Amino acid sequence: MKRESTPTMKDVARECGLSLATVSKVINGLPVGKKSRERVEAAIDKLGYQVNTYARALKSSKTYSVALVMPSLKHPFFAYLTDELTKCLMNRGYRAVLMITNYDAEVEQKSFVMVRSNKMDGVIALTYSPDLSVGESIPIVTIDRHLGEDIPCISSDNYRGGELAAQKLIELGCRKLLFMRITSPVQGEPNKRCSGFESVCNTRGIEYETLLFHDNEPNEPIYLFLEDHIRDGAFDFDGVFCNSDLLASRVIRFLSERGVSVPGQVQIIGYDGIIDRFTGKHVCSTIEQPIAQMSETAVNILLDYQGASEGVNICLPVKYIPGGTTKD
Amino acid sequence: MKRESTPTMKDVARECGLSLATVSKVINGLPVGKKSRERVEAAIDKLGYQVNTYARALKSSKTYSVALVMPSLKHPFFAYLTDELTKCLMNRGYRAVLMITNYDAEVEQKSFVMVRSNKMDGVIALTYSPDLSVGESIPIVTIDRHLGEDIPCISSDNYRGGELAAQKLIELGCRKLLFMRITSPVQGEPNKRCSGFESVCNTRGIEYETLLFHDNEPNEPIYLFLEDHIRDGAFDFDGVFCNSDLLASRVIRFLSERGVSVPGQVQIIGYDGIIDRFTGKHVCSTIEQPIAQMSETAVNILLDYQGASEGVNICLPVKYIPGGTTKD
Repeated sequence: MKRESTPTMKDVARECGLSLATVSKVINGLPVGKKSRERVEAAIDKLGYQVNTYARALKSSKTYSVALVMPSLKHPFFAYLTDELTKCLMNRGYRAVLMITNYDAEVEQKSFVMVRSNKMDGVIALTYSPDLSVGESIPIVTIDRHLGEDIPCISSDNYRGGELAAQKLIELGCRKLLFMRITSPVQGEPNKRCSGFESVCNTRGIEYETLLFHDNEPNEPIYLFLEDHIRDGAFDFDGVFCNSDLLASRVIRFLSERGVSVPGQVQIIGYDGIIDRFTGKHVCSTIEQPIAQMSETAVNILLDYQGASEGVNICLPVKYIPGGTTKD
Repeated sequence: MKRESTPTMKDVARECGLSLATVSKVINGLPVGKKSRERVEAAIDKLGYQVNTYARALKSSKTYSVALVMPSLKHPFFAYLTDELTKCLMNRGYRAVLMITNYDAEVEQKSFVMVRSNKMDGVIALTYSPDLSVGESIPIVTIDRHLGEDIPCISSDNYRGGELAAQKLIELGCRKLLFMRITSPVQGEPNKRCSGFESVCNTRGIEYETLLFHDNEPNEPIYLFLEDHIRDGAFDFDGVFCNSDLLASRVIRFLSERGVSVPGQVQIIGYDGIIDRFTGKHVCSTIEQPIAQMSETAVNILLDYQGASEGVNICLPVKYIPGGTTKD
């Protein structure tokens, strides 16, 4: 019954007349216009809004444990993400309960059930099942996935990333572009990489093709397509954007093995921006995801704004990084 | 006094007419025939049975949670190990509570304290602090480390690995060998890689040098040493064994950049045997650690033999794998 008296983020948003997303950005120290920031801060002062998980924890029966639902740690992006998420949770005094799903829908569903039966405080999930049923009761934040209107989604600015990749390739002289993606049936933010890429190609009047492969057997069809488009040592496209550095590295390897020079004949840009620990370098020119910032944001949203974060969808800024597979 | 009215696992077993063991397997997510699983799940729904881990914990004084204390997930070996350990724990119906220490002694010590204060059932740890005080009360299994006489240690057969590497290099014609290792001050199984290597060199009368660098700034002294031993395009050693694939890949890169051909002039063998996700290949000829087997063993020892595992020190078999940096 004390509820009404403690101001929520919603109250702050109502007070300053700005969106919940804007308010949460301000509190997270994310980029927001000066004017908006000042309005939000004024509202926070006026209402005496306080972020205080620990105080709230005493009232509610908290377990100080948060589930991290991840497909695998054998993919460097997921390993880096899990590393950062775990450190953020530990810094907040929470336990990170890791659940590895191996991209298996049944295991994903089971982990959500387990989270509820274990009375955990929340979930940060990166899932692949298109029809996950998420329990009402669990506070959840996703990375890259849309699991429901009222579930916050944290991601890199995928649309901007697609734009950046297309702009770069065009700026570097490419005139026949290709976008390659390994898709999963799930509705996710990464789909926007394609839209951003296409919009730039269309407005600039650049010829392009987009290719979607399915993630159950990622390699064969890709290699067949590449093979079909190599004619006496020349590739039909002079610029390729791949939706991950992993896919890009496969494409680069395949083309090089067949005497197609990268970046000489074909320039290639990937996505993720993870440094290969073995080479100590980026594996290709790439769009870098701000993994540490994504992790911190996901943890803060989950722990500070439970129940008050409807529709929050935060896309964090990406950066283009030349990595030797483009002519810059 | 509401106790009686809340359905127990026994009620579920009675309802579906299956054994208590089968019911608990289903609830703990252990393998069970599809038909049985469906019958148990139907009974659970009908009775509205709820797994309450904490209630269960009070009865059995178990929390069904095990801490995984790891230095980082940005190193592929630790990422693969954590992936496998987590899956093994989940298969046994346990939660994996991940703790990332960043090789920091204070954080390592803190995580052991946390394990005790959280009443976790045990710890599987890969630590770097030389003087970690481990609580009496916690069942613990280490990967690669000797934290005490009565603490089981699971590792690959490091001594045998060192022997294999030396034998291979000699068999492939190397006559002036070098062993390079980045050390930490901790007493660990990996030290045996050096002993195994040296014993073979000594019995075969092969000239060798062993070099230990410290892990606080791994690169500079290594590169200085290599630089000093390159004389007009030739390296002073014709065979090198590195105590990790990561170190090997740095050495290979450095030598190649200075015109020393690998494996032409120098043959190099690393340790770990992890496949680089980006290239899809081993980064070098290597001694492969059986990560999945090590993980399963660690989990089984921790959960099944608590208190009865004094002095258990299990070294699992390693394998030599040619990876293009040797002449085989």
